[in-house]
Amino acid sequence: MRLAQGETLRLEKFAAYHWASEGALAARVAVTLDRAVKAGFEAIEAAHAAEVEAFWDRSDVLVEAPGDVQRTVRFNLFQVMQSTARAEGLGVAAKGVTGRGYEGHYFWDTEVYVVPFLVHTTPAWARRLLEFRCGMLGAARRRAREVGHAGALYPWRTIDGSEASAWYAAGTAQYHINADIAYAMHHYNRVTGDLGFLLERGAEVLVETARLWMELGFFSERRDGAFCINSVTGPDEYTTVVDDNAYTNLMAKENLEVATRVVEWLEATDPEAYAALAQATGLRDPEIEGWRRAAEAMHVPRHEELGIVLQDARFLERKRWDFEGTPPEKHPLLLHFHPLELYRHQVIKQADVVLATYLVGHHFDAEEKRRTFDYYDPLTTGDSTLSACIQSVMASEVGHPAAALEYFTRAATVDLADAHGNTGDGIHVASCGGTWLALVAGFGGLRDADGEVRLAPRLPREWRRLRFRIEVRGQLIEVDMTPAATVYRLLEGRGLPIEHFGEPLRLAPGVPLVRPATTALPGPDVDELPRAA
Amino acid sequence: MRLAQGETLRLEKFAAYHWASEGALAARVAVTLDRAVKAGFEAIEAAHAAEVEAFWDRSDVLVEAPGDVQRTVRFNLFQVMQSTARAEGLGVAAKGVTGRGYEGHYFWDTEVYVVPFLVHTTPAWARRLLEFRCGMLGAARRRAREVGHAGALYPWRTIDGSEASAWYAAGTAQYHINADIAYAMHHYNRVTGDLGFLLERGAEVLVETARLWMELGFFSERRDGAFCINSVTGPDEYTTVVDDNAYTNLMAKENLEVATRVVEWLEATDPEAYAALAQATGLRDPEIEGWRRAAEAMHVPRHEELGIVLQDARFLERKRWDFEGTPPEKHPLLLHFHPLELYRHQVIKQADVVLATYLVGHHFDAEEKRRTFDYYDPLTTGDSTLSACIQSVMASEVGHPAAALEYFTRAATVDLADAHGNTGDGIHVASCGGTWLALVAGFGGLRDADGEVRLAPRLPREWRRLRFRIEVRGQLIEVDMTPAATVYRLLEGRGLPIEHFGEPLRLAPGVPLVRPATTALPGPDVDELPRAA
Repeated sequence: MRLAQGETLRLEKFAAYHWASEGALAARVAVTLDRAVKAGFEAIEAAHAAEVEAFWDRSDVLVEAPGDVQRTVRFNLFQVMQSTARAEGLGVAAKGVTGRGYEGHYFWDTEVYVVPFLVHTTPAWARRLLEFRCGMLGAARRRAREVGHAGALYPWRTIDGSEASAWYAAGTAQYHINADIAYAMHHYNRVTGDLGFLLERGAEVLVETARLWMELGFFSERRDGAFCINSVTGPDEYTTVVDDNAYTNLMAKENLEVATRVVEWLEATDPEAYAALAQATGLRDPEIEGWRRAAEAMHVPRHEELGIVLQDARFLERKRWDFEGTPPEKHPLLLHFHPLELYRHQVIKQADVVLATYLVGHHFDAEEKRRTFDYYDPLTTGDSTLSACIQSVMASEVGHPAAALEYFTRAATVDLADAHGNTGDGIHVASCGGTWLALVAGFGGLRDADGEVRLAPRLPREWRRLRFRIEVRGQLIEVDMTPAATVYRLLEGRGLPIEHFGEPLRLAPGVPLVRPATTALPGPDVDELPRAA
Repeated sequence: MRLAQGETLRLEKFAAYHWASEGALAARVAVTLDRAVKAGFEAIEAAHAAEVEAFWDRSDVLVEAPGDVQRTVRFNLFQVMQSTARAEGLGVAAKGVTGRGYEGHYFWDTEVYVVPFLVHTTPAWARRLLEFRCGMLGAARRRAREVGHAGALYPWRTIDGSEASAWYAAGTAQYHINADIAYAMHHYNRVTGDLGFLLERGAEVLVETARLWMELGFFSERRDGAFCINSVTGPDEYTTVVDDNAYTNLMAKENLEVATRVVEWLEATDPEAYAALAQATGLRDPEIEGWRRAAEAMHVPRHEELGIVLQDARFLERKRWDFEGTPPEKHPLLLHFHPLELYRHQVIKQADVVLATYLVGHHFDAEEKRRTFDYYDPLTTGDSTLSACIQSVMASEVGHPAAALEYFTRAATVDLADAHGNTGDGIHVASCGGTWLALVAGFGGLRDADGEVRLAPRLPREWRRLRFRIEVRGQLIEVDMTPAATVYRLLEGRGLPIEHFGEPLRLAPGVPLVRPATTALPGPDVDELPRAA
């Protein structure tokens, strides 16, 4: 063929990608390519654009604020979409599909930092990720046997369900991952109303994860029968293998309560499903009674005088870290100090008990949350990217708006600013999902882990507008915050109750509800906290 | 050459062995061989026999008892001789020179389990072993820097002075090795009166080891200024990285006190040597004042109600191990349970606080020692061969003679009976030295770490005689125990004071002292303790 002058030649090249652990991959690629050639580039491009459009329609968060905040926010949401949209039978790796950091392993980042966004924007993707965990139940059972327990023990880091960490102190000892998974399943179930997930797969995971706590913990005679859990590591990896980590104990309590409720609900409403579950797990009534007793008696270490929840039983007994004597080049601490040196000090890598005040905040009163935040925040280095977003969420709640904005910015710019100097190994998916949390659970004040929708909007005073949408049981709510007011609209659905700073409201189609804006909680307006580093 | 019938041909073959990290080894071997050929086999054999004879003359322990006890005892002493006699510039490996277990590494076995025997029988060998540690001071200083501290940190396991353990929980975290070395040096110095060792090399080690504790620990405001040491592992490797391990704190206290006394003695008696020490270590007066304050304020966790010393601050908060539900084939536990499972239970690998009641017994009263022994003994698996000998020593002291004999037998037969199933990897030198401890410090009741010779002979009721010799500041004491009486004789020397069950006696040449036998302490005669396994 010879092109005449002015003529152009257009070459179209199609590429297809498939993944499978077994099977005829090449044949599947060929089928996909045949389909692609037949459909043509324009059709494929249009279908893709429609999908992306639909994602933004459900998921976008509008921010009107000085500087580049809007683009920064969208960068983070885009990263979650990229990492999640085609995860299909797999999970979301800590780096998504953007780099080789953590060897592609899955952590609890998914359940605590990514699933909440998906639950409210694309529930089907959330379900896929939770089903991925269900598929790992066999491996988690084997892992529990390996370390000497009944039930299931989900691995701290994994590719195929087996524990890929050789480091128990900050790995296996993070038993809380069991409770994090149970929490995410419950959250998904309550917000979406998808009972099928529990019936088909989730209940078995709840039973097996609950079971493990009964072997880890015990009713301590020395503490008047309180249920204590020793030798575990909480989220904070600068304080490992401790007794009665408050986060772990509170999340285990939740795990036990949820398992109890779901099992009893099954028994009452679907005897056949219950019989199958009992068959699959060897579950018997006295065991459930044990869960209830353990959950009720769960020990949460508190310090009466300071009025705070203790990160663990011995946290206050440790020496305080010398932050002033630690120059910037010695951060992050984990690269410059021996683990034992970190472990024996009051120094925190990432939100731990503060994360508990967010996830299971109903166990704390408002003042206790504030005092707890104020105690731990100056000790928190933020050397983990799982931290800033949670610190932002709780700074908003306890009335530190300037700190909330500062932590939000840190979370949102981790990768854009390469703030931890390792974005070359891949983006930080948890921080991307966490950016959404800082916006919606932080500035928006959303709390709905039990399915009731509570909001407490507090717009940063530098911002002109924050607008987001959340899906709850198939209905679509829009929350539109400006310095003057918050407007709630029901975009889809027949109506549902919500709470605005504790005030019960009923959202109905076509009837926006308007409430005057609140920028900070009543109480001491502490804008600037002492910063540790 | 042709042999006629009836003629014999005798071939003599000489072999020489040298070791050096550098230098002309072959030449040295050649020189040795030349000397050997010149001296001839008979002369070499005679010289060797004389050396061995001299060892037994100083070191033998005579036991008249049913069965094979005498031979068993001598087997153990022989193993110590084999491992130590030619250690020269090196240490005594955990397996001596008998096998490849532990890759030939040195542990604290030497200082606590082997040196006491040598101090009392061949002080020159003890000094060589301690000098070996002095030679490691540079590496110990570097190790301290590596983990972020001033002073010196002796490695848990080593070949050349650098830490060869990659496992911090039961390795590096055993900071007590610093204090064990200081203790052995002080013991050597007090019993032998060899001041030269301190002047030339020991004082520097005492200073640098003391120094480390000041960085590890802190004066805790929460405990009214008590000096607390967090995140360390004591001798018991089934309970790791704990706060205020009593053994560690008490031995650190000793380390600080000894360093203070030696430095002050040097300053007062040998200003030149003191100046050199201050120069080499950067020592200044305020630092010594800090040691004194820390030693005085050292926190020792106790349980008032039970009247015992706590192994660590949280020991009693742990769940008790289910010994009855642990079948024999699940022992030793470390091969069958995940470390975290062991760590969260009251279960002990080896004598820990009980070892402290022996080494630094002056911090406990008699009843506290007994209650402490009775609490921990049923929790002690003896999965380490460093345990039985110490349990025997303290069972003797607190009045459990049957248990003392049982533990002595376990210690003495570890290798002969291959009781741990791993003697193929080499003998257990610590248990060999510990066998002597069970005889002399246990049945003989010898306590002389501070240089004062206290004895408390308690012959097992099944035995007819136990006789041993101990050298103290160049004088040689013989202790001869029978069911009727104990006879003390001074075999060499000008005379010295001793104590017999607290009664001051003066030993003089040619005047045996006779005291009626005591087989058990006054107080409850508990012959059989509940056994854990």
